[in-house]
Amino acid sequence: MTTRRKKIYEGKAKILYEGPEPGTLVQYFKDDATAFNGEKKAQLEGKGVINNRISEFVMTRLTQIGVQNHFIKRLSLREQLIREVEIIPLEVVCRNVVAGSMAKRFNLPEGQQLPRSIIEFYYKNDEMGDPMITEEHITAFNWATTQEIDDILAMTLRVNDFLCGMFAAVGITLVDFKIEFGRLFEGEFARVILADEISPDSCRLWDTQSGEKLDKDRFRRDLGDVIESYTEVAKRLGIMKDMPRVIEGGAQ
Amino acid sequence: MTTRRKKIYEGKAKILYEGPEPGTLVQYFKDDATAFNGEKKAQLEGKGVINNRISEFVMTRLTQIGVQNHFIKRLSLREQLIREVEIIPLEVVCRNVVAGSMAKRFNLPEGQQLPRSIIEFYYKNDEMGDPMITEEHITAFNWATTQEIDDILAMTLRVNDFLCGMFAAVGITLVDFKIEFGRLFEGEFARVILADEISPDSCRLWDTQSGEKLDKDRFRRDLGDVIESYTEVAKRLGIMKDMPRVIEGGAQ
Repeated sequence: MTTRRKKIYEGKAKILYEGPEPGTLVQYFKDDATAFNGEKKAQLEGKGVINNRISEFVMTRLTQIGVQNHFIKRLSLREQLIREVEIIPLEVVCRNVVAGSMAKRFNLPEGQQLPRSIIEFYYKNDEMGDPMITEEHITAFNWATTQEIDDILAMTLRVNDFLCGMFAAVGITLVDFKIEFGRLFEGEFARVILADEISPDSCRLWDTQSGEKLDKDRFRRDLGDVIESYTEVAKRLGIMKDMPRVIEGGAQ
Repeated sequence: MTTRRKKIYEGKAKILYEGPEPGTLVQYFKDDATAFNGEKKAQLEGKGVINNRISEFVMTRLTQIGVQNHFIKRLSLREQLIREVEIIPLEVVCRNVVAGSMAKRFNLPEGQQLPRSIIEFYYKNDEMGDPMITEEHITAFNWATTQEIDDILAMTLRVNDFLCGMFAAVGITLVDFKIEFGRLFEGEFARVILADEISPDSCRLWDTQSGEKLDKDRFRRDLGDVIESYTEVAKRLGIMKDMPRVIEGGAQ
């Protein structure tokens, strides 16, 4: 199916194809894992399938609570139909617990609870290594308007509250996550909606009891059992019941 | 223990006792179930124990995401230590799906998804039968200030986002819920924090797959299996692992 469709964009973990109707795209989840701006690479069999399902689970429920996003429906194991948006070139990171680059930047111990949730912006640009930026840069370089930044901040906080509840219910601490937004055009007007994906590739997820990492850090830090951990997240959310083949690394 | 403490207030489902330190109270969860403003009554063995645990689970996690509330710690099967607040006489109802009195008031079918979450205020007064009120009444009768109403609305939406995520993760639809707020005094200043409880007594919870009710409507509507349903909610949230005795209707 996908091979017949026109490729619009290929990223490190996903491919976008022309959709069946104007204003739609097909988002294909690859098994490719990359880290450190592409320096580390691997194929993780089944990752695309799991992330497609987890992202579907989250996005449909965000729609239900009124957080508008690009997801329309899942088409197959690795494909989902999405609304075409103009991606805003920001990686929006929301942090509840110190980890990753924040631990390095401020020399703080990983695992320290933040006094409140902190939102950071990074400029989505591989050549520059996705540098951290401020609202000053965003408006000065016209990457987003002040109103769009306000909408992004409000939606990010809502997504954080929802995801904190969702993961708390299954014994997982949401340490941090990265999301992206896009402009959906309606005539001459555009509104900002959530785009991209929400999955263990884009979140830091720690088992609340044991502290065990259940996310992409298993790949970044060579901890092993990457797919097993992603599968554990999906299982706890009740997602994997109807797809045992993938757990064994099989399908498509 | 509780018998030695001075009783401060007795409600339909809970008793408040003097706490061990100034500014604290002990909240005791009774097994009493009442509905229709006290006209229907029963004893449901173990309900107090389950609601104490579910409320603890929710309140501790709301604290973690920065939604301030009165919960300090659980003391025993039916008791929790809480901060003493001046209760604001409002029942704040947040609805995602049509049910209960909203279905009656607007002649709408139960189960209809609302276009967006709706918050309603009821005046907490048994003699008047907890009438629905507007912000006009609240400010005119000095039940809360405009600023307090704003804080209540903002916190209620955050609680809703969190609870929607929490219940979605375990296959439960959060139809609606009722919460209460109180003033925490710090010198001459007061700030509004979440009080009371969050449990199947105060939420409408439907199994997402089957539509089965897992909340107090089982009691109101004589559907049976009330305790079994409350226990199911606790189990799905991973709460009941260490208290099998209660499931069999035993303890304290």
